[in-house]
Amino acid sequence: MKCKAAVAWGPGQPLKIEEVDVQDPQAGEVLVRMVATGVCHTDAFTLSGEDPEGIFPAILGHEGAGVVEAVGAGVTTLKVGDHVIPLYTAECGECKFCQSGKTNLCQAVRETQGKGLMPDGTSRFSINGEPIFHYMGTSTFSEYSVVPEISLAKIHVDAPLEKVCLLGCGITTGIGAVLNTAKVEKGDTVAIFGLGGIGLSCIQGARMAGASRIIAIDINESKFEMAKQFGATDCVNPKNFDKSIQEVIVEMTDGGVDYSFECIGNVQVMRSALECCHKGWGESIIIGVAGAGQEISTRPFQLVTGRVWKGSAFGGVKGRSQLPGYVEDYMNGKIEIDPFVTHTMPLEQINEAFDLMHKGESIRTVILFDQK
Amino acid sequence: MKCKAAVAWGPGQPLKIEEVDVQDPQAGEVLVRMVATGVCHTDAFTLSGEDPEGIFPAILGHEGAGVVEAVGAGVTTLKVGDHVIPLYTAECGECKFCQSGKTNLCQAVRETQGKGLMPDGTSRFSINGEPIFHYMGTSTFSEYSVVPEISLAKIHVDAPLEKVCLLGCGITTGIGAVLNTAKVEKGDTVAIFGLGGIGLSCIQGARMAGASRIIAIDINESKFEMAKQFGATDCVNPKNFDKSIQEVIVEMTDGGVDYSFECIGNVQVMRSALECCHKGWGESIIIGVAGAGQEISTRPFQLVTGRVWKGSAFGGVKGRSQLPGYVEDYMNGKIEIDPFVTHTMPLEQINEAFDLMHKGESIRTVILFDQK
Repeated sequence: MKCKAAVAWGPGQPLKIEEVDVQDPQAGEVLVRMVATGVCHTDAFTLSGEDPEGIFPAILGHEGAGVVEAVGAGVTTLKVGDHVIPLYTAECGECKFCQSGKTNLCQAVRETQGKGLMPDGTSRFSINGEPIFHYMGTSTFSEYSVVPEISLAKIHVDAPLEKVCLLGCGITTGIGAVLNTAKVEKGDTVAIFGLGGIGLSCIQGARMAGASRIIAIDINESKFEMAKQFGATDCVNPKNFDKSIQEVIVEMTDGGVDYSFECIGNVQVMRSALECCHKGWGESIIIGVAGAGQEISTRPFQLVTGRVWKGSAFGGVKGRSQLPGYVEDYMNGKIEIDPFVTHTMPLEQINEAFDLMHKGESIRTVILFDQK
Repeated sequence: MKCKAAVAWGPGQPLKIEEVDVQDPQAGEVLVRMVATGVCHTDAFTLSGEDPEGIFPAILGHEGAGVVEAVGAGVTTLKVGDHVIPLYTAECGECKFCQSGKTNLCQAVRETQGKGLMPDGTSRFSINGEPIFHYMGTSTFSEYSVVPEISLAKIHVDAPLEKVCLLGCGITTGIGAVLNTAKVEKGDTVAIFGLGGIGLSCIQGARMAGASRIIAIDINESKFEMAKQFGATDCVNPKNFDKSIQEVIVEMTDGGVDYSFECIGNVQVMRSALECCHKGWGESIIIGVAGAGQEISTRPFQLVTGRVWKGSAFGGVKGRSQLPGYVEDYMNGKIEIDPFVTHTMPLEQINEAFDLMHKGESIRTVILFDQK
């Protein structure tokens, strides 16, 4: 079949709306008609050329929601008409990782996914017979996408896809990092660095966990109002101080926070986030993705005196088994998504969505696909 | 009173046996007659001048055991004749840290201890009226030492002090890092970097925990026999490979170990220890103390993909409440100490003990004080 998609032809170039050929889903694969997709910093990161794993030409997008249009041979857990969220972290249930009970990082399709291919080593997208690569196993910037069965979460049929698409990445990542990875408890203090979609979601997660103090940190003070709406108790601009932000936070909290979250991808901020944690028990969670070759560093004394440095991917959430619960938490009012959707637009305007994000004017733009 | 002590007059100088004046214990303090003390790398580190907190002249030593000789005003939990192990990590039971239930890093006397002083800000040691500094709150290289009440663990009166003195630092640090900090479980795989007293104790802890594979790593292969005696299943010399030790370990273990321990204080090895951990859940524990200003580094991707970087001080063991149990575990055969004691000698020969350690010929030398 043919459909419309936004194609990334090369690093640093605007996306181009093209008519692409989409091959039928093969064994274990599913054809999804996309209804909505968010535009996330990770898409911009890959498009910029800084992502060492970036491959072109490709169809980006990984924060989508849609409806099953067709299934390939052997697909048993999904049927035509099911509502789904594509997962860039699959859940096969059978690999060493899924079986460990300790991580959500299923490795079943990791290798081919990293190469922009389906599990059989080929692509389902092409233009004039030339293959176009998949992206993160999801490629949601297309009216239709082929996704492995194990990379689709089946969600409640009544959930508004133009909202819950954002659970496909940023919101779940932020909330999950707080609730699953850090396991913040009632009364804990937290510091959140970077108030984009993930940072705001961390604030939301911290409020859900009952944190007593939620310190939101950004150099763009226009983010503070929204941070407060989500539950931040303090908003801090590091530029307003002539000492390091870790010193500022340590003083504000009589020794440091119980948990901190880095939601930017800046290795200097990752260090600050660790060092603003309380001696003896403070834990810092890295969520942001740093540029190729960049390294974090600190004095080992920081760890020997009890701080813990960890990271979180997709909030530690197992997509197939746990994401449907996040969707229901949205439906019953426990998770807020609506304030994140600052803009909506059709696929044709997707480059505007990137511009808004780069200018810091949007939290999330949701692309709404034409419904035929 | 006057007694014999080994005084460190300055960095890089041999210790000198001197007659020192020891003042009576003041309020909340206890006079301890030392029976035995180990000589540990941390003493050598401070003596070398590399320790940024090192202060001279001082009486070093922090791995001792002795008998209470006198108590100062207000001391209620110890009496003359009690057998004790001095603690460089106090346990007051009342500070924010002790009350947290999350750390053993009591801060009650931390500040004065770091300055080589008793909690009232003065020293109990002097020569010709000139004060000699305390060290780590313990100063066990002296026939008599004054120690805060909250820095003494009361132990079973039948425990052999010339053995259990080693529970005052290295052995407890290694075993505790495995059992308390990492919480290694039956069947887990571990890698231990550096086979000095702490590394061998980690091996012992891993065997106690029921680890299925215990990989011991050192560039000095003469350590391997002892490592195997304590329970190492594999011994690896990184110099025998032309790839990085983390690659070697990852290949040996089909993806990396569940837990690793750095027992050297080398920031490059700390990186290797982290990176040989299994994606998704591997945890690396830093135990070794690095030189001043040195930093650890890695790509944040290591953490985002599920590895955890932490540290351990005194094995996470709360000295007053938990160390007596370690002593009893030695007495009932659960913990081995005897093989660690490769040499014994009187205080007069203490510089030989340092020489043996620097040459890698001893695991621990225990100094036995003359018993009058």
